[in-house]
Order: sequence, then structure tokens, then C-alpha cells
Amino acid sequence: MNNMPARPYAGASPQGGAPTLAVRRLGIDTLREPVVYMRPDCHVCRAEGFRAQSRVEVTVGARSVVATLNVVTSDILEQDEAGLSEVAWFLLDAHDDDVAAFAHPRPVESMSHVRAKIYGSRLGREAFASIIGDVVQKRYSDIQLAAFVTACAGNRLDLNETTALTNAMIDVGARIRWDAPQIVDKHCVGGLPGNRTTLLVVPIVAAFGLIIPKTSSRAITSPSGTADAMETLAPVDLDLPALRRVVAREGGCIAWGGAVSLSPADDILIGVERPLDLDSEGQLVASVLSKKAAAGATDVVIDIPVGPTAKVRNEAAAHALAQRLAEVGTAVGLHVRNVVTDGSQPVGRGIGPALEARDVLSVLKGESDAPADLRDRALHMAGEVISLSREVVLGKARALAEALLADGSAWRKFQAICEAQGGMRKPPIARHTHPVAASRAGRIIAFDNRRLARAAKLAGAPGEPAAGMVVHVKTGTYVEAGQPLFTLHAMAPGELGYALDYVASQPDIVEIGE
Amino acid sequence: MNNMPARPYAGASPQGGAPTLAVRRLGIDTLREPVVYMRPDCHVCRAEGFRAQSRVEVTVGARSVVATLNVVTSDILEQDEAGLSEVAWFLLDAHDDDVAAFAHPRPVESMSHVRAKIYGSRLGREAFASIIGDVVQKRYSDIQLAAFVTACAGNRLDLNETTALTNAMIDVGARIRWDAPQIVDKHCVGGLPGNRTTLLVVPIVAAFGLIIPKTSSRAITSPSGTADAMETLAPVDLDLPALRRVVAREGGCIAWGGAVSLSPADDILIGVERPLDLDSEGQLVASVLSKKAAAGATDVVIDIPVGPTAKVRNEAAAHALAQRLAEVGTAVGLHVRNVVTDGSQPVGRGIGPALEARDVLSVLKGESDAPADLRDRALHMAGEVISLSREVVLGKARALAEALLADGSAWRKFQAICEAQGGMRKPPIARHTHPVAASRAGRIIAFDNRRLARAAKLAGAPGEPAAGMVVHVKTGTYVEAGQPLFTLHAMAPGELGYALDYVASQPDIVEIGE
Repeated sequence: MNNMPARPYAGASPQGGAPTLAVRRLGIDTLREPVVYMRPDCHVCRAEGFRAQSRVEVTVGARSVVATLNVVTSDILEQDEAGLSEVAWFLLDAHDDDVAAFAHPRPVESMSHVRAKIYGSRLGREAFASIIGDVVQKRYSDIQLAAFVTACAGNRLDLNETTALTNAMIDVGARIRWDAPQIVDKHCVGGLPGNRTTLLVVPIVAAFGLIIPKTSSRAITSPSGTADAMETLAPVDLDLPALRRVVAREGGCIAWGGAVSLSPADDILIGVERPLDLDSEGQLVASVLSKKAAAGATDVVIDIPVGPTAKVRNEAAAHALAQRLAEVGTAVGLHVRNVVTDGSQPVGRGIGPALEARDVLSVLKGESDAPADLRDRALHMAGEVISLSREVVLGKARALAEALLADGSAWRKFQAICEAQGGMRKPPIARHTHPVAASRAGRIIAFDNRRLARAAKLAGAPGEPAAGMVVHVKTGTYVEAGQPLFTLHAMAPGELGYALDYVASQPDIVEIGE
Repeated sequence: MNNMPARPYAGASPQGGAPTLAVRRLGIDTLREPVVYMRPDCHVCRAEGFRAQSRVEVTVGARSVVATLNVVTSDILEQDEAGLSEVAWFLLDAHDDDVAAFAHPRPVESMSHVRAKIYGSRLGREAFASIIGDVVQKRYSDIQLAAFVTACAGNRLDLNETTALTNAMIDVGARIRWDAPQIVDKHCVGGLPGNRTTLLVVPIVAAFGLIIPKTSSRAITSPSGTADAMETLAPVDLDLPALRRVVAREGGCIAWGGAVSLSPADDILIGVERPLDLDSEGQLVASVLSKKAAAGATDVVIDIPVGPTAKVRNEAAAHALAQRLAEVGTAVGLHVRNVVTDGSQPVGRGIGPALEARDVLSVLKGESDAPADLRDRALHMAGEVISLSREVVLGKARALAEALLADGSAWRKFQAICEAQGGMRKPPIARHTHPVAASRAGRIIAFDNRRLARAAKLAGAPGEPAAGMVVHVKTGTYVEAGQPLFTLHAMAPGELGYALDYVASQPDIVEIGE
């Protein structure tokens, strides 16, 4: 049948005769989720039947957002106005005295695909495209995003689904085209505190002469992302023209991917994965490869650290992930080389943006006490990237990388990149520090990366770039009772105290043998 | 090792020297999720490092809640005060001039079980107990609740897990003890619009003489729950003493389960399942049986409607669900009898709280045009319940039920129950109605229950009790072109228009054959 309702409204959409209110910037920061504030007795709520937590489409001029309604019964709002949270205000590009129209949002039809996925169905390319399309249009609430991320976690995406998700995430963002036959890139799947090799690999590789336009994310579930660490040394919020300018001049950059919107869907999904402390294989592959493809890379080296408390727990899982990365890479037109590395203990000494940046500087400057493990890993990865060049034999690439670090080329290149990105600066120093000592003598057997990371996060990292910890020992180090194992760094006494409370409750965070 | 941080704070907990602010009721209704509002320059944010969306433990006197922080940069808040959303204000039992202490909440350790579940692990009794314990203490954010509900959906809970979840949900709530050897109950797993048999079964069964203290939920994903429909006829917010008084006097009641906190965890989980339109088997079994066990039932009849667009799609799924309900029932000490029924089309005429209540009244009063299908289903279910009585032969139970309806006993009992619950009232009538007509002549082949339900919800049900629709045809009815198939009812023109838009976009919501 065709239903024939004689429609009582003129417009073809519910917005046809949508009711309006003047908007007011309430100055409430709700971070990611747009919130609109209205009085229950305003004519919009009465006409449209909106209630607390209703999803409301708010339109100002040509821009619309779907916001969550908070109902205001006090005098912070007049009856004839609607308040907007900060993110809603900016997304709508609203100004004082603007008038907004309010309507029921179209039902988020792509949630039916999410439900199908929850019930165990396999989703096709169109399903992922419609989900990711709605996600970047900010039509999903936090609850809906959490359901999607959860439904895809736990290895519930097969190869075709991961490829479809990756393509969907590439398609909704910008994709940089470079006028060069080979663009290299590198990535670490993470989970290893202090593994800040990117800040070393990029200047070495760029000094060698390959083009490496590196974009990095901020921390997802860790106390520091590459972009967070780099930001303590130079600006990373480069827009696309700035990024192109830096790369044209220096052959490489270390920029925050979010600023160039390379994978805007990923930036939104990460916002939910972070509080859930969730980072699933399918999402991980799609996140990494969508960003590399969007950045215009042709060849990518991926560092997969393996350890009992790293993100990847054992060799079998590492090889499964490597295979998935290579296969999806091929499907989206990327040559992927995976390098499985030791992930049993933190790399370098610092954990946290500024403390990691300090480790990087000491390696670049060739200081005698620079962390040897960070230097070695960086040279390994730089060698792998350099060997992607069609002119280099793999066996010689590491030696080339070492020479570029030893002769100061990499350090000069790093400073040049920082200057090109807006000027080099000194990492901040924490106001409060507190050592945590060994309870008895013995040899260090193991580190719990996850709990060390949690302690660093409780100390304030990455929100406070100076916060985190400095680890003074390595596996195999012999310590006396009372000797400091690590020192916590924080900007606020509350955070320092909280991290210390946590550490005191986790006696085996650093394991000392008999 | 044992770490030995020389703690710089006196208290054993982070709350030891927790900073404080005066609280202010901001009059912002955020529904379920407690929100606290602070200025970024207040000493609490500075000392504790809180940022927008931080989870903050707020303590006033002996009460604490974990709230989400919204950072306020405007003058709606002074620097030395913290605003509270309505739910935070009530949960804390706060008053003007109260002072609150603020601290980082303990990490929600039970989320590690949720993550394990996401990654495919089976959870034991202790894991579910710790998750549900944290849920009822409101320590889970909406995102975390969504992840838990999603991780358990799609048949990912086995028998032991479903039993563990059910027991955990029983244990955190009140459990009513009755001074009687047999307490009967009934439940419908839902998904069938208009299936309001409870309002008929309870008075018939109580008139027969069995004790049936029925507690019902409000709508989860449907346009009307039993409690919503009953509320249009009498108060349903009975506390435990009131519920006991009604049952002692009349042998039965039809109350809202949420008011007696029979399964407080379920009420919280439903708040997330509803916007996700998600209702999984494990959660369903745990939800139903935890409420029945908590209500003190010994014998329960469960109606499982089956149809291509009902909640349960086919006989096989119905029998699997029936088996799970019976097995978990046995494990928690409940005798469960399942009745699989036809769920291919809506029951009665009304869809929506008040419209369904009208159907119930016409059956109770024995009106000649009362919906025959609703009457028949109610007698079937009442017969099943009556047959649970050890004194009745199954074959005779239905005849007993028919007699009690025919002679007015059930109608008198219903009125008595309404009076005992606080007084009978008339269901409200919608302000706006609009018929939707057949586009051509033919015989009705099928109804899409889900889309009919969505149309009724778009029209405002169950938030507006008068809203929904009246269906004028049944499968097999012959209609002429232009003849009304159903009539939408709404309180607000916006909602009516939105429902009409939706119906116009769904031409096969009621299928007419050639």
C-alpha cells in the first residue's frame, strides 16, 4: 500500500515549520557531545514534545547539529531562549542574537546495522559507509558510539568487514595527494610506555631523503601519544597547507592528525574508546590504515611490540594482527611491512609527554647517558623505513640510519622540522615529584606496562604534559631496598596523591625477584 | 616488591583532605546521569586536575555520587561554588548552603570484567556481582553501561552467565517475602503492540483467589509498558508498604516495579537499552526473572509472542528462550511455565498507554465491540495462571477464567484494585488525531509491528500517555482504497507531523494484498 496522509504541514521535512528560539552561549564545556538547554515550558518543548535527554536537531543558518537536551527549570535561562554548550556553539558557528530552529532528528537508520552487528551479523561495505557517515555527521550519541565500538571489539570484524570499515573511514575524510612516487610512513600499535621512536625515525628518514609526512594521534588509552610528546617541543596543530609547507621544506613532519581531519571518524570513535579503555583489532587496523592512506602514504612500517602486558600479548596475536594489517593494506592500496618487537618493558625512562620528549632530545644530541634501548629501537625502525627505498639494500639500511644519527644530521633535521612547524620549545617541568622505592633488594624481573601507564595517567598525563613518571630501572637491574624504582611527576597535589595511592595498592607493578 | 611511597597526605583515602565547595542547585535536568558543574579556575579543578568530562566523586554528608564534570566558563556559576544537576542533587539529598567534597573516584575495577566479556571471555558469578554492584552504586557512566549492555547482547551470555547475572540483579535489590505458600505472576516478553493482557489477567486471577502481586516495567523500546497503560487508570508508583496493603486487601495489584526498587540494576540498564533499541536474551531473562524473584513469586507464566516482526522472530528462537527462562528460573528457585503465542499482528486496537487502557476497559465491561483477540489472549493467559493452582485441572482453568470475566467479577476486582492503588481515573484523550488511509483496495496481509511501534513512539508514546495509534483493521480484513487503516493520536502538532512523515516514508507498514 501507499499511505496517503493529508499532511497538515507545508514543508517536506519536519523542519518545514520548525519552531525557533534565540540562542545563548551558556559557557558549559561538555567536551565532545553537543548539549542544548531549554526550559520545559518553552514553546519548542511544548510543540515538539521534547523531554530531558531527547535528541534534538538544532539548526542555525546552514549548519545543523544533533544535540542532547538538558531541561532547565531555573532562572539561568529565559523561556524564549535556548542555551548551547561550547561544542554545540562552535559546531553551529553561532553568535549572540542568532535564532535557531529545532526539530526531531531523522531516526539514525544506520543504528539498525549496529544492532545487526551486535546480534552477530556480518556487515557489508554499504553498512559501514552509512554508519561512519552518520558518525562524522555527529548523529550518534555517546551511548550509540559506545555500542558500535563495543560491537566491533573482541575480533568480531573479519577481513572484509575491517576493509569495509577502513574504506568508509578513508572516504569521509580528506586524502592528501603528493607529487612523488613514494611516500613512507611508520606507526606503532602502542601499548608500550615511552616508545617514542617516531620523534627519532622521522628526522633520520627525512635526513636520508625519503618523504615522511607523519601524522600522529594523541593518546587513546595511554598516558602519552606521539602528538602529545611532540607538542611539548613544537606546535603540532598544522592545517593542511602548513603540513604541505613543512614537508616540502624538510621532507618530513610530526603533526597531529586530528588537525588535518585525516580520519575524522577515528577522532570521534577514539573519544569513546578512551573512557572504555578499549582498543580492538578491527578498529585498530581501520584507525591506523585509514590515517596512513589519507595521509597519502604508499609504504608503511608498523611496529608491533609484544609482551605480556603490552597491547599485543603474544607472538601468535602479533602475527595475526600483522597479517590483518598487510591484507587490509593491500585491499586499500598500501604496502605494509610489519616489525614485531620486544614489548616486555617500558622504552627509555620517561612516561608522559614531556618526560618522553626529554628522552628523545638526549638521543638526538648523542648524550652519553641517553637511553640505549630507545636509541636502538629507533635505529631499527628507521632502518626498516629506509630499506623501503628502492635504492637501498636491507642489510645496509640500519648502518645508514646510525650514521645519520651519529653525525648530527638527524638532530639538525629535527630542529629544522620543529622550526618549520612553528618554532622549537622546551618541554615543561612538573611542579611535584615523588620517588617510589623498592621494598627490598633483588633483581628486577618484570614490569606491568598497563599499571605503570595507569599510574602515569593518574598523575595527570597526558592532560598535563609535564606529568607522568621517570623509570630508573630495567629488567635485570639489581636494586637495594629503598632504592628508587621510579619517580612520579604531577602538576597538582591531588593527582600526585592519587597516583601514589594507586601505586601503593599495586605492590607487583614492578616485580623484584628473590 | 612493596612500594613504599612516603605519602604526603594524612588520610588513608584520596578523600582524606578532599577539597570542598558550596553546592548550588542549577535546575538542569540531565535525567539519569549525575552532572557536576565547576569553573576551571576553582580550587578543586586546579588541585585535582579535573577537566571537562572527568568523572568526579561528589560527597555531601554521608552520601556520594560519581558525576560527570561539565566545566563552566560563564557567570552562571561563582568560582567558589559547584552546580549540581537535578539527579545529582536528589541522589545527594543536598540542600542550599551544603558543602560538598570532591575527589577522583576509585577506578571502576569491574570494567575489567566488561572488557573481558567484550573480548569473548565467560564471566563468573563474582564478576557479575561486582559489575552489578558498581552499576547500582551509579559508578558506571552511560558509555560504560552501553558497553556492558552491548557486550552481553547477541546471545553472548550462556546459561551459567545468565544465572549469575540474574542472581546478581536479585541480590542488589529488595526481595519481598509473602506469608503464603504460592504466589503467582505473569509476564510477556513483549514486542507485540497492544498486548495489554496483564490488566485483564490480574483481576481475573485475583478474583479466582490466587495471590498475584504484579509489578511491571515502563516501556523499554516499545510505545507502552504495562505500567504506562495502568498509570492512565490508577496510580502505579506504590512503595512497598502500599503494595503489600493493596495485595492484602485485593489479592493482586498492577504496580510499577521501579517504585519498589525490585531490581534497581535493571532500571538503570533499561535506561541505556532504550535509546539503543536493544533488548538481548540474557538481559531479558535476567531482567524478567530478577523482578519476579524479587517480587516473591513462586510460579510464573511467561507469554512469548512469535512473529516475523515481534521481539521473538520464529518458533525455534521462542523455544530456545523458553528453555533458558525455565532453566534460569529453576536455578534461582522459580517455577516457570512458558506459553508461546501468535505475535504476527498487534493485539486489540490501541497502541499507546491510554489507547490500550481503553481496550482493556471495554473487555472488562463486556462491551459488544470489545477487541475479541485481546479478550481471547487474556483468557488464555489467565487460564494458564489459574492452572498453576494445585487445585485446578488445566482443562477447566480457561472456563473458570471466562466465567469470572463474564459475570463481572473481574471488572469489580479491577475497580477495587484501582481504588486500593489510590483511585481509578479516566485515561487522557489526545488533542490531535489523523487517519492514515489505504492507497488501494485489497485484503490486509501483514503488519510490521516494529514500524507501527516506531510510528506510535514518534507520535509521542509513551512519554505522552494519550499518544499512539488506533488500528482499525486485522490480517484478512478487506479494505477499500481510502478506507482508514489506522489513526495517529498525538498531543503536539510536531509529534503528529513527525509520525505522519515517518508513516509516509514506510509504504509497507501495513501490507495490502492484490
